[in-house]
Formats: sequence, C-alpha cells, structure tokens
Amino acid sequence: MLIVFLGTAGSGKTTLTGEFGKHLEDEGHTVSYVNLDTGVRSLPYKPDLDVRNTITVDDVMKEGYGPNGAIVESYDRLLERLEYYSSSISKLEKESDYVLIDTPGQMETFLFHEFAWRLMERFDAPLVVYLFDPGILQRIYDFCFVRFFGLLIELRLASTTIPVLNKIDVVDSIERYRRYLEDMNYLTSRLKFDPSMQGYLAYRLCSALLEAISPVRVLYISAKEHVGFEDLETIAHEHYCTCGDLT
Amino acid sequence: MLIVFLGTAGSGKTTLTGEFGKHLEDEGHTVSYVNLDTGVRSLPYKPDLDVRNTITVDDVMKEGYGPNGAIVESYDRLLERLEYYSSSISKLEKESDYVLIDTPGQMETFLFHEFAWRLMERFDAPLVVYLFDPGILQRIYDFCFVRFFGLLIELRLASTTIPVLNKIDVVDSIERYRRYLEDMNYLTSRLKFDPSMQGYLAYRLCSALLEAISPVRVLYISAKEHVGFEDLETIAHEHYCTCGDLT
Repeated sequence: MLIVFLGTAGSGKTTLTGEFGKHLEDEGHTVSYVNLDTGVRSLPYKPDLDVRNTITVDDVMKEGYGPNGAIVESYDRLLERLEYYSSSISKLEKESDYVLIDTPGQMETFLFHEFAWRLMERFDAPLVVYLFDPGILQRIYDFCFVRFFGLLIELRLASTTIPVLNKIDVVDSIERYRRYLEDMNYLTSRLKFDPSMQGYLAYRLCSALLEAISPVRVLYISAKEHVGFEDLETIAHEHYCTCGDLT
Repeated sequence: MLIVFLGTAGSGKTTLTGEFGKHLEDEGHTVSYVNLDTGVRSLPYKPDLDVRNTITVDDVMKEGYGPNGAIVESYDRLLERLEYYSSSISKLEKESDYVLIDTPGQMETFLFHEFAWRLMERFDAPLVVYLFDPGILQRIYDFCFVRFFGLLIELRLASTTIPVLNKIDVVDSIERYRRYLEDMNYLTSRLKFDPSMQGYLAYRLCSALLEAISPVRVLYISAKEHVGFEDLETIAHEHYCTCGDLT
C-alpha cells in the first residue's frame, strides 16, 4: 500500500510519516519510508529512499540560487531521475506492507511541478493524505477552501485524496470542525445568508460541490498523540480493497 | 489602484511586477512597488516597501532553520508587523496611481499563511493577478485545475482574481490555450467522454463551475516582451470602476 502525505509547510507531514510508520511497525507490519523533500534537514524516520541522495536545496543554494529558486531547481533535476525514483518506489511496494511517502515541504512543489504528477501516474492506486491544521480554519470560508483544495489535489494527481485535520491535540473539541467539514448541507446553509462577496462565492462553490461531488470522509488526527491512526489504517485498507470509493 | 501578483515559484511574478511597472511609468503614471517575498535575493525594480527590511529567509536559515521552515517562520514574524505593512501600503496607494505588490516566491505562503489574508482584508478592492505558465497545462485536466485554482485564490483572499497565462512568448500559438481556458462549454464537452477517474472528476468539477460561476476573462501576457500589458491595464481600470464585475 502506497500512502502519500501532502500538505503545506508546517502541516505535519514528516512527523505523521514517522509516527504513523512506528504505529504500523508496532503492529507487526513492514513499512518502507520515502522522502521526497529536497529541503528537509533531519527526519524522524530512516528513509529507504531519499531524494537528498540526488540533490538538496542547500546544495543548490550553494550554487548561488535563492531559497525559492533552489526549491524549483532541485525538482527540475529530480525530473531527470524520474525513472529511478518510480521504479525504486514500486520495488519497495512489492517488498513491504506499507510504503509511506513524505512529500516536499512546500505543497505547491508537489502540486505544480511535473516531477510529482509524472511520478504519481506510474503507481496503481496511491492514496493521498491531504493534511491541514486548525490554524487555517479561522473563518467559515476556510472550510469551503480546504474541501475544494482536496478536490484539486485529487484532480491534479489523479489519486484518491483524504482530507485530514491534523494537530487536533491543539484544539479543545473537534465538534465544530467536524460539522463544517463533513456536513456540506450545514456549511452551505450557514453561507447562504453571508452578505459578503466572499460568502457569496463560498456559497456558490459549496452548493456546486454538494451537487457534483460524492461525500468524502474526513479524518481527525494527532500525529503527536497517535490519535486517529486506526481510522487512517482502515481507510487505507478500504481504498485498496474497493479501489477508490471512500464515501 | 492596488494590483497583487500571485503565482507559483517561477511563474514570473517578480519580472512582471518590474516590467509592468516600467510600462506604466513610461505612460506617465506614478507607480509604487511592494516586495512581500522574504526569500528573493535581487529585484528588477526598486521597492518602496520591502519585507526584507524586517526579515529574510536567509537570516532565518542562519539561525539553523531549513529552507521550508525558514520560509514559514519569516511570515510568522511578519505577522507581528501586520499593522505597519498594511498602513504603509495604504499610504502608498494614496500617493501613487498604481501600487504593484509582488508576493512570496512560494504561492502557498500567501494562500495559507494568516499574514496574507489578514493583510488583504485591510484593503478596499485589491485586484489579484494569478499567474501560471504554459508548462503546467500539459493535460486537459490541467485547464480545469488552474481555473479552479483561480477561484480558490479569490475565495481565500476575498479579492477579485484574474487568471493570467504568462510566458506566452514560449508557445507558438495561444489559440489552443485560449479555447480551453475561456470556453468552459468546450472544455466540459471534451472531458465528457474521458474514461479515466481523473477525466470524470474534471468533468464533474467543470460542469459545476459552468453552472455556479460567472465567466471570468483570462489574460495572455509575456512579461518579457510586454505583450498583453494594455489588457491588464484595461482590466485594472474596469475593476476599479465597476468594483469587481470583470465578465
């Protein structure tokens, strides 16, 4: 099983990769770890495959690039080794129960760079875990934003994508989050009478989403406290048994 | 008039800010330049306001952060100076015909970090120019992806957003791009018979978009060759006259 952890810088991809991997290993599964982040300095897991063996952001910066240019340049160079990385991951998939893939620190690298979708299209049915944290859900519109963002990831990477609220240990209760993230009817009805331009756009988008898209389960995880790991395991199993229908 | 240039690292924000500014100045307008990128090393324009006077990614990296962490950390620190930056920009807006705002190298910083939406909500009617380049439009799904991405930017930043295909000097003809980007009926009809899961998702999303969203004009620009600058100027004027209806 191939699970890809995706999210903005700071959303907790690397920590979750390490902690979820530990959890699986404790249960007796064999786990392989893949690091696709050219910018990370240290990892809480031992990668079986690591793009930093090809290139790091720090290396490229030493050539005179600024940090932003260096990030893009590092993936331009990885693209030349696409075949090596895709076949190495496929090999790991055969050898182990789980392959956990940790993606670039900046999510947009994985969403916009050709390296990412070309790599993903070589796998049969990778499951993408889209991580976001409570900090970005401050306004009602933001719930609409993250739900749509999940769909865009699914579209761009052609892979079933599970939205995951991470870092739930920092909030008192997940009930408010749960209601807005899972009950699109409720979210839409709350947006209906928002008089702002933003509220109107969110309402139109969410109404359209209600019609067009089948419901997707949302997971609530604390990587730090190992909360929600069983749910993630269950959903990964369902994904590999049913080939994508996670409603 | 406040124009905000947004796009992934490498999409040409900084070059366009500089070249469009030159064009406006040549026409006799007064132009102020704002740099919000803590990671940029050199600029082709002289900024009137520059976040690097507060903090740079390089500074934060010297404290031991990796490049990804340093980018996020630099905006955490800028958030403490939000008031200063928003009032400085408002002051520039009063003093000049145009204020051109160049955003962080990594687009996700501006989309996901609190600094960005809190800054944007303090302005009356900023116009966001969402830049993407022909390189990301390789598959039919990608056209659906960028159109939706534009909407998500609009939703998150509560600002009218114009999708702009930049770097048109690198393509032979923009006709194919124009058809897929502007004629949503055509795009949807082409997606209808795509048998892949990706095609089906793109079809559902684009069909919903057709119903829910009023058409938005797309611009075609070459920052390098000053192509499309009049269109951008026109749309900025229309935006400030009509308060947002750019159909």
